[in-house]
Amino acid sequence: MPEISKKGQKMPESPIRKLVPFSEAAKKKGRKVYHLNIGQPDIETPEVALNAIRNYDEKVVAYSHSAGNISYRKKLVEYYKANKINVTADDIIIGAGASEAILFAMNSCLDEGDEIIIPEPFYANYNGFATNAGVDVKPIPSAIDNGFALPPISNFEEAITDRTKAIMICNPNNPTGYLYSREELETLRELVLKYDLFLFADEVYREFTYDGHKHFSVMELDGLDDHVIMIDSVSKRYSACGFRIGCMVSRNKQVISTALKFAQARLSPPSFGQVAAEAALDTPKEYFDNVMDEYFARRNIVVEEINQMDGAYCPKPKGAFYVVAKLPIDNADRFCQWLLEDFEYENQTVMLAPATGFYSTPGSGRQEVRISYVLNVEDLKKAMKTLDEALKAYPGREI
Amino acid sequence: MPEISKKGQKMPESPIRKLVPFSEAAKKKGRKVYHLNIGQPDIETPEVALNAIRNYDEKVVAYSHSAGNISYRKKLVEYYKANKINVTADDIIIGAGASEAILFAMNSCLDEGDEIIIPEPFYANYNGFATNAGVDVKPIPSAIDNGFALPPISNFEEAITDRTKAIMICNPNNPTGYLYSREELETLRELVLKYDLFLFADEVYREFTYDGHKHFSVMELDGLDDHVIMIDSVSKRYSACGFRIGCMVSRNKQVISTALKFAQARLSPPSFGQVAAEAALDTPKEYFDNVMDEYFARRNIVVEEINQMDGAYCPKPKGAFYVVAKLPIDNADRFCQWLLEDFEYENQTVMLAPATGFYSTPGSGRQEVRISYVLNVEDLKKAMKTLDEALKAYPGREI
Repeated sequence: MPEISKKGQKMPESPIRKLVPFSEAAKKKGRKVYHLNIGQPDIETPEVALNAIRNYDEKVVAYSHSAGNISYRKKLVEYYKANKINVTADDIIIGAGASEAILFAMNSCLDEGDEIIIPEPFYANYNGFATNAGVDVKPIPSAIDNGFALPPISNFEEAITDRTKAIMICNPNNPTGYLYSREELETLRELVLKYDLFLFADEVYREFTYDGHKHFSVMELDGLDDHVIMIDSVSKRYSACGFRIGCMVSRNKQVISTALKFAQARLSPPSFGQVAAEAALDTPKEYFDNVMDEYFARRNIVVEEINQMDGAYCPKPKGAFYVVAKLPIDNADRFCQWLLEDFEYENQTVMLAPATGFYSTPGSGRQEVRISYVLNVEDLKKAMKTLDEALKAYPGREI
Repeated sequence: MPEISKKGQKMPESPIRKLVPFSEAAKKKGRKVYHLNIGQPDIETPEVALNAIRNYDEKVVAYSHSAGNISYRKKLVEYYKANKINVTADDIIIGAGASEAILFAMNSCLDEGDEIIIPEPFYANYNGFATNAGVDVKPIPSAIDNGFALPPISNFEEAITDRTKAIMICNPNNPTGYLYSREELETLRELVLKYDLFLFADEVYREFTYDGHKHFSVMELDGLDDHVIMIDSVSKRYSACGFRIGCMVSRNKQVISTALKFAQARLSPPSFGQVAAEAALDTPKEYFDNVMDEYFARRNIVVEEINQMDGAYCPKPKGAFYVVAKLPIDNADRFCQWLLEDFEYENQTVMLAPATGFYSTPGSGRQEVRISYVLNVEDLKKAMKTLDEALKAYPGREI
């Protein structure tokens, strides 16, 4: 039997997936499992997008332009303009989700053995994309004590080697919910210019900001046209994960023309998803107002409830729909499995994501979990009560 | 400005894309351009598939299973069974087109610097996928004189090195239309076992066979469960290129579990496309009967007409909807550009794909073009007449 690739052996498995069989077993026992482990929102996809699909009237579902339909990209230009991001349709390549866009960006900018610096904890699949592209991730720790703010620039400088080609951030952040300030991004700007690096910014949670704070995009930074690659997606914005529509945006012509070669090899992004995503740009403001009110209420419940649990701590993040909380536990992986395998409170339990999977430094995040607040307020309260009871009952309790 | 990657610099550009500006310029001059250069069929997508999209009634367009919806994979199992291919739903991973499935397969089986042997001419984008995965393509020439039959096994053996991990075929073949016989595949079977290699087979044109010939799949070969990875797609079968739905199929559990890690990193394949593709499996037999009658008539016209042109030769392939023809020209790239830039017959011209782009050996295919018969019979006849006139007028004529 021929051997599979070393790259394939090295591909990380999602830390959440390991828990799926335990979750299924719990459900088989008749237990209600509150899913706080995933980034799949429960919010309805906007009607205007679904109607576009229902009214689809092409006779032949053909390939689109490899960079995506020009009508969609032109409309995206208007959307970005309204968000203070000035780009042209030629600066945008539509991908099958942000996932494909990240692969295009990594493959266009980094070679096997090159390094990308990412503050940790970070979105676990960045590891998979990096392994896919043969790129080494160099983590810089951020800390729960300051809410996972941008680590000091000196820490980045210490990590830079002659193989470092890029820095990557996610803003607002998955998994921490942290919203980088303009000031923090300006310090990154200096760093990127000083060392002539690419700056990748995953901004898929742009609209999800709270307490009156606004997102500031890396695309707004001066003098970084050749450095910045912004990653975007419709998945969270319109609760449209299944569209598989995202994009990469850059004013660096060489990056775009290179990424386009990768895009051309795979012919085109999904046609139906593009039609729905283009229509989604007409989603009425009230939709977002309602969604943001809902997430705002949920965030407050999660943060308040966790901070009332004995020995637990949760910062109050300004963005996205995640928190990383510190719990009085010996081992987050063990605890999350125990919740599904051995625990129940009034025949309910919760599924959480161990934060260990979001760190690339071994041992980090051992006492932390990521909570996605993708349940309605009522369920969320029940889930928090269940978690509170679980912490009291957990045999591996450790402050 | 940071440098783009060496991999990105190495990514090949599609040889057809270079001609697009010339085609657009010709159209601007008011010229009718017959597109025989692309694999985008003109056939209508089955109603049953489009209706499934029009009746889409989910409220939240969520991620699907990373390997694809289980309902779709189960139905695919039935489809394969009807095609004498026995597999389970767990042997199938749905991708965003065959393109993504090929990337999953290459990344799971080959590392940077490993080699894959492919008979040439071959589908040009295999070069792009190989470059993307860091894999080296080793071409084995097939010849127009015997209709591009499988090259002698001794030629494969000569090309095998200690970096060779896989052999790849496309059957029926794009660009040649050649349909490999069971006997040819049995010789490949021996080779693959002898050298312990993976065998990748792109079988997306399975249904497109003529003159009573039937497709024989590599999945039907005995004792190759650990070696064979079959690539499939709905794009051509249902004229559904925009669905972006394909799959990889293998009975090798380790290959599937490895590929699944790549699939999980990008979360899921397109949801709308999967719904449409699942419904497409109910396409009535009459649809295919009509489509095959149509392609059969087209193939006959193209082959007969070209063979009547002075100095031209075209084999009569048994499959797909392409032919590679030899023309009395000095340089296929130059000829194809000249057709668009300088030629017109009754204000019409044709766009062809230079075969050079389908060879990886420099200089090969210099006198050959690929013709996709994706136009209706009437237009195809006009296009052939136009090509005939063009060959008479071309200044670089060379027998």
